[in-house]
Amino acid sequence: MSPKSNKALGKIGQPPGTLIYLGKHEQKSTRISLIDYSPEEFSEQEITNIEDCFPYKDKNTVTWINIDGLNQIDTIEKLGNHFNLHYLLLEDVLNTEHRPKVEEYDDHTFLTLKMLGISEDGNSIVSEQVSFVLGENWVISFQEFQGDIFNKVRERIREGIGNIRKMGSDYLLYRLLDTVVDNYYLVTEYFSDSTQALEEQVLKNPEKESLVEIQHMKKKLSDLRKAVRPLREAVLQLEKESKFIKNKTRPYLRDVYEHVIHVNDSMENHRDILASIMDLYMSGVSNKMNEVMKVLTIIATIFIPLTFIAGVYGMNFEHMPELHWKYSYYGIWGLMILIFIGMLFYFKKKDWL
Amino acid sequence: MSPKSNKALGKIGQPPGTLIYLGKHEQKSTRISLIDYSPEEFSEQEITNIEDCFPYKDKNTVTWINIDGLNQIDTIEKLGNHFNLHYLLLEDVLNTEHRPKVEEYDDHTFLTLKMLGISEDGNSIVSEQVSFVLGENWVISFQEFQGDIFNKVRERIREGIGNIRKMGSDYLLYRLLDTVVDNYYLVTEYFSDSTQALEEQVLKNPEKESLVEIQHMKKKLSDLRKAVRPLREAVLQLEKESKFIKNKTRPYLRDVYEHVIHVNDSMENHRDILASIMDLYMSGVSNKMNEVMKVLTIIATIFIPLTFIAGVYGMNFEHMPELHWKYSYYGIWGLMILIFIGMLFYFKKKDWL
Amino acid sequence: MSPKSNKALGKIGQPPGTLIYLGKHEQKSTRISLIDYSPEEFSEQEITNIEDCFPYKDKNTVTWINIDGLNQIDTIEKLGNHFNLHYLLLEDVLNTEHRPKVEEYDDHTFLTLKMLGISEDGNSIVSEQVSFVLGENWVISFQEFQGDIFNKVRERIREGIGNIRKMGSDYLLYRLLDTVVDNYYLVTEYFSDSTQALEEQVLKNPEKESLVEIQHMKKKLSDLRKAVRPLREAVLQLEKESKFIKNKTRPYLRDVYEHVIHVNDSMENHRDILASIMDLYMSGVSNKMNEVMKVLTIIATIFIPLTFIAGVYGMNFEHMPELHWKYSYYGIWGLMILIFIGMLFYFKKKDWL
Amino acid sequence: MSPKSNKALGKIGQPPGTLIYLGKHEQKSTRISLIDYSPEEFSEQEITNIEDCFPYKDKNTVTWINIDGLNQIDTIEKLGNHFNLHYLLLEDVLNTEHRPKVEEYDDHTFLTLKMLGISEDGNSIVSEQVSFVLGENWVISFQEFQGDIFNKVRERIREGIGNIRKMGSDYLLYRLLDTVVDNYYLVTEYFSDSTQALEEQVLKNPEKESLVEIQHMKKKLSDLRKAVRPLREAVLQLEKESKFIKNKTRPYLRDVYEHVIHVNDSMENHRDILASIMDLYMSGVSNKMNEVMKVLTIIATIFIPLTFIAGVYGMNFEHMPELHWKYSYYGIWGLMILIFIGMLFYFKKKDWL
Amino acid sequence: MSPKSNKALGKIGQPPGTLIYLGKHEQKSTRISLIDYSPEEFSEQEITNIEDCFPYKDKNTVTWINIDGLNQIDTIEKLGNHFNLHYLLLEDVLNTEHRPKVEEYDDHTFLTLKMLGISEDGNSIVSEQVSFVLGENWVISFQEFQGDIFNKVRERIREGIGNIRKMGSDYLLYRLLDTVVDNYYLVTEYFSDSTQALEEQVLKNPEKESLVEIQHMKKKLSDLRKAVRPLREAVLQLEKESKFIKNKTRPYLRDVYEHVIHVNDSMENHRDILASIMDLYMSGVSNKMNEVMKVLTIIATIFIPLTFIAGVYGMNFEHMPELHWKYSYYGIWGLMILIFIGMLFYFKKKDWL
Repeated sequence: MSPKSNKALGKIGQPPGTLIYLGKHEQKSTRISLIDYSPEEFSEQEITNIEDCFPYKDKNTVTWINIDGLNQIDTIEKLGNHFNLHYLLLEDVLNTEHRPKVEEYDDHTFLTLKMLGISEDGNSIVSEQVSFVLGENWVISFQEFQGDIFNKVRERIREGIGNIRKMGSDYLLYRLLDTVVDNYYLVTEYFSDSTQALEEQVLKNPEKESLVEIQHMKKKLSDLRKAVRPLREAVLQLEKESKFIKNKTRPYLRDVYEHVIHVNDSMENHRDILASIMDLYMSGVSNKMNEVMKVLTIIATIFIPLTFIAGVYGMNFEHMPELHWKYSYYGIWGLMILIFIGMLFYFKKKDWL
Repeated sequence: MSPKSNKALGKIGQPPGTLIYLGKHEQKSTRISLIDYSPEEFSEQEITNIEDCFPYKDKNTVTWINIDGLNQIDTIEKLGNHFNLHYLLLEDVLNTEHRPKVEEYDDHTFLTLKMLGISEDGNSIVSEQVSFVLGENWVISFQEFQGDIFNKVRERIREGIGNIRKMGSDYLLYRLLDTVVDNYYLVTEYFSDSTQALEEQVLKNPEKESLVEIQHMKKKLSDLRKAVRPLREAVLQLEKESKFIKNKTRPYLRDVYEHVIHVNDSMENHRDILASIMDLYMSGVSNKMNEVMKVLTIIATIFIPLTFIAGVYGMNFEHMPELHWKYSYYGIWGLMILIFIGMLFYFKKKDWL
Repeated sequence: MSPKSNKALGKIGQPPGTLIYLGKHEQKSTRISLIDYSPEEFSEQEITNIEDCFPYKDKNTVTWINIDGLNQIDTIEKLGNHFNLHYLLLEDVLNTEHRPKVEEYDDHTFLTLKMLGISEDGNSIVSEQVSFVLGENWVISFQEFQGDIFNKVRERIREGIGNIRKMGSDYLLYRLLDTVVDNYYLVTEYFSDSTQALEEQVLKNPEKESLVEIQHMKKKLSDLRKAVRPLREAVLQLEKESKFIKNKTRPYLRDVYEHVIHVNDSMENHRDILASIMDLYMSGVSNKMNEVMKVLTIIATIFIPLTFIAGVYGMNFEHMPELHWKYSYYGIWGLMILIFIGMLFYFKKKDWL
Repeated sequence: MSPKSNKALGKIGQPPGTLIYLGKHEQKSTRISLIDYSPEEFSEQEITNIEDCFPYKDKNTVTWINIDGLNQIDTIEKLGNHFNLHYLLLEDVLNTEHRPKVEEYDDHTFLTLKMLGISEDGNSIVSEQVSFVLGENWVISFQEFQGDIFNKVRERIREGIGNIRKMGSDYLLYRLLDTVVDNYYLVTEYFSDSTQALEEQVLKNPEKESLVEIQHMKKKLSDLRKAVRPLREAVLQLEKESKFIKNKTRPYLRDVYEHVIHVNDSMENHRDILASIMDLYMSGVSNKMNEVMKVLTIIATIFIPLTFIAGVYGMNFEHMPELHWKYSYYGIWGLMILIFIGMLFYFKKKDWL
Repeated sequence: MSPKSNKALGKIGQPPGTLIYLGKHEQKSTRISLIDYSPEEFSEQEITNIEDCFPYKDKNTVTWINIDGLNQIDTIEKLGNHFNLHYLLLEDVLNTEHRPKVEEYDDHTFLTLKMLGISEDGNSIVSEQVSFVLGENWVISFQEFQGDIFNKVRERIREGIGNIRKMGSDYLLYRLLDTVVDNYYLVTEYFSDSTQALEEQVLKNPEKESLVEIQHMKKKLSDLRKAVRPLREAVLQLEKESKFIKNKTRPYLRDVYEHVIHVNDSMENHRDILASIMDLYMSGVSNKMNEVMKVLTIIATIFIPLTFIAGVYGMNFEHMPELHWKYSYYGIWGLMILIFIGMLFYFKKKDWL
């Protein structure tokens, strides 16, 4: 929480008008790739000089410009100027703390959301801001750092598999968005596994570590919900209102919308599960305390009366007739054993043993 | 949760365009049956060659094609092509993880929901995805595996009982939907019985097993709510908006809608009941601890002072006049018995005995 | 819960088209009474042959047909046919599990709700389904079993008291509905008294019985809310939308609506009260445990050190000079009394005594 | 709760058409005062004969009729008849259990709400029903019993301070309403003080009395919310919809609306505070128990081992060499003191001392 | 809470028509500064005579009048009269208890909100009421006391940096509003840090101080939410409805709106975090109690049986053969050591050590 917010704080007092990258990925190199296609043609190139992209804006073919790394602000600014991107749009691209949203502009639609995944060690969730700008014939995608998540889409365009080459830029946007949302399932899967493991552990032995783990899971989940919840209405808005989405593509976006709802429901579910794991923990602790108390009570309740009896015959009165009887010692042992057995029966009946 | 999700994960990265069955029923054989009827005519046949269904699409009579088993994807695809079903619709039929929903297409309406029942051993809830496509004169129903739930409807069509033969395909859809929703009552019944048994058990003796059982019930209920809650608005949407539902049939759908609400209310009720069973459990554990503490306290509070007295007269001082008195031993016994009785009275007064 | 649902289960698999009474009142005889009035005329009769009612349908006077007992299904069916009641309407009349609702038909309005009262022994709430059908000039009321709740309304029609004879059938419906809703106050009253008694008992002595009682109250309340909550929107719908309600009657229905809201608010209030009685119970149990622990701690903390001292001088070492001093026995008693008093002061200061 | 409801019960079964005062104030005398003013004129009089008010209805000047005490039902009825007040309106005036609401009639607007204040001993909240009827040129106000709350308004009209004499009857209503709502701040103030005192007390020493007090506060707050919450929409409705409110007065009503929201927010806030005081109480009880347990544990853990050692050397075996050593008694004392000190260190380390 | 409300109480009974400053800042001097600019011109001056501002109202240039300190009520009243500010608007400016809101007037828009910051010692949050009035060509800002928060905006106007000089008064309002909202991030940052520190402390050692701290944080957060929550709809209303906001400026306000939502989400998040810190505290206390109980149980369970054995051989029976055996003393020691070790193993197995 804190480091991210610190970044956001770097923005305070800054007038709008200065683009600053607020993310935490220190990737210096910005890689720009451009794919241009139509049903018949296909070309792909690495862009080193941003001006090379400019002619594609008004070409009839579909153009996809992908930008990995948000540190070369001047490049992004030039691109923005040429493609007529609003200043605040660029600010939103660079502000990696932004809630997912869709913003409709005169000649393009802007969509920003989070890409979620599991870290390589499998123990944490990594989050990256991805933004898309959809124009008449082009899509620009911004990623915080290089990844291979869109490679399958690239592959299919390159090979002309399916109908992607036959559709417009809005279908490309759908495919990219769908890829990002599909990845969310990995994260819900991760939560399913983690909460199940946690529940089993808490049921077996409720320890302080479990408690800390529950807290961590809660926070992760809360971070996640921040990423997924606003996306729901954003995708709905995209499907319903964007003028750059053709009718033919809307059912596909509707499909993405349902996936987002599904992921969202699943988050809510995990929230409930975490709450009941907390309940389990609390009652587990109570049960442990109960068990401790039972042991103490059984031992004390058996031996305190016996000790009392022993104490009585340890008194030094001159006139204690029992002390002089021949079998009284054995009689006392018998009495004590009787009490012992009686107590055991009592505890058995009380279901404490 | 986890196995299902794993299936869903099988879909990640897959481009739309490849139909994959995501359910867990490994039933290889797909059984297709076709019923065709009008007020006057009736025919029924097992279909082995899917093309045999095709002519019925444009016949004036009502045709019901029922498909049990979703593994023969090519058959489903062929059917889909002939009946002009959207690619995403077929995907939803095969994705058994889908939330219940209604989708309106140009020349048909799609409805997917869960069929719920009690497993044969009576201990768990079984869930199956059922999908319906309603066209002008036909209904196609998809079930994950073979069952006899629709047999009564078949019977009534076959025998011409009631007005089902006189009504259109929309009324047939209503009858199928009504059958599925009626079955939900079995599940709420199951919950009524289970929660009542659980409550009695927890009241009698709150044990760890009860706690685990509460957790299981909660999860089942949560799974169920996922199946029933979205159905509410789906049925409402069907009744209000679908152009394939005739006005005459709408009141019947309204009736189904009310059943769904009823089931839903009942779920919410069970949720509350489970929460209060959890409360009962927690306070039952507290009560047990209280009882244990009382036993310990009574024993310790009675015998610790008595043991002290015995200890005093076990001291070895030379000058302890009481030791030499003739009746002091009996006096001490009297004192101890007095203290014992006094303590019992005290506990009686405190209501601890 | 369970017995009711069992009845509902009797309906599963039954095709719509078979009227079955689903209530639990085994009252075999159905009593039908008919009141017909206009400002000038008044007639009242017991109907044994249902056909006797039929002519009244098209008479200009206001006709009220009251049916007590829902077991003579064929009678109800005949009546329904003549008065043109929809098949599903009759089903709703007979399904006593139904949520309160208003349904608008072409030539009548249907209203079903629960009549609530206190059982004769004053310990439980009795619930009965009442349904009304309002036509242009007539009202049909269905009750599950005979009761005298509507007698006052009958009296006033008979005697021509107030303006009831001057108004139409909609005003009659209002009067009947108002009578039912007024009875709800008896139930909220019952809850006020019960929760207050329960709270006092829990404050005095939190016992397991109180806990069970809280659970019972919660369930009763939950059943009640199911009866009252949907009525709110039903009455509102009746007032706003029904075409059989004249403008002159609407303010009266608005008044009923406000009573329903009032009852509803009162239910919510009792829900909160029950929740805080549960809190009281829980903290009462904690307090009791605290008290037990204090007694144990006081006794143990005073006598364990004293017993230790006695133990020390019960040791058998040869060389223990104190044993031989003349006043050491008295000195030890003094020391022990000092410790005893000191401990008492300590507990006093800690506020434990 | 109970006494109020009993009153409401007095109404059950009563047909609409009989006005009954349902409040609890037994004030027999009804005082009626009339103020009539225009920018130029002013007259004020006590009314003993209700007919004296009637001519003012159609006068052009603004007339304010204030009625203190609702027991002279015939007077109220006469007034109602002359001013054309609906029967249900009068019923609402007399039913002091009514939720605050605004009702729009053809030639007047009706507003009923609660006047809240602190009782003279400063320990409880007093509530009184106040109703206003706003006509073209007149306001009628009904109070349950005599009070001086409106005196300042009277004063300002009498003296012609401010612009009240220049405005119409709607502005007068605003001024009266504003006076009532301003008084609510006294009550929120009372809650601020009470909850703060309660919190301090619970933090210092959580006792059963605090628990009872928390319950009482909760109930008071719940009663209050019933008075304030519906007022919010009532005032909004008055401002937005009433045809007797002139545009010039609307901003003032908007202002009142904001005050009501403010009071409402403050109530919600106190609700949260009470909930967290309950939490404080619960954890305070836990802390006390903890402290008791620590004392017990420290004493028992120190002295039980020491007593054991003393017990060992109190054994009467013939062959116990230590008994005969010269310094073993002192050695044992040393050992016991070592154990004692060691234990103290251990508890210090554990932070129990 | 209390001191603020006391101020508000100062207003009760006061007729509208008397302006009173209700804030707590006793800053007597009111400082008025005026900035007037157009793309070409710029002038800045301290105003001592309020009439000096008046000519700027109708100038074509953008004029910003900033008023620090709200104690010179007559000055504010004169300004209000000249700029045609509604009486209630001025009252809202002076009532520092007001919820944030936007009010649309005929020739200006009014916006009031809270400025939040961290106190100089870094331990508390300071809140100040700021109000803006936006006219065609002018902005008037009211602050409770002098601060330098708007200095950066002043600087940019003065130096002509960015496009602020080229835009109208609505853009100036946006810049001021944006500055205030940006400051909110400082406060969320403060909460992030505080809750994190608190959580760590509670995890390490749950003490009563932590509990008090949690309560304090809750209250602060609750105060904050009161400042931020209503702002959300206020800014939305400003963006959507105000006629003084030009289309060009709307996207900027939309941006502010998103910041407010972000801050709001962050508050909700901290609320959840505080709730789970409370949970941590409660279970921390339970854990501590558990630990105490374990120590007691271990010591008592080991030594009570041993003491019993010692007690047995401290009895004074004449006929106790063991007493006379040569090695029985050593045998008893062996037995006791065996029991001791056995117990330790038992506790090890139970995981209590």
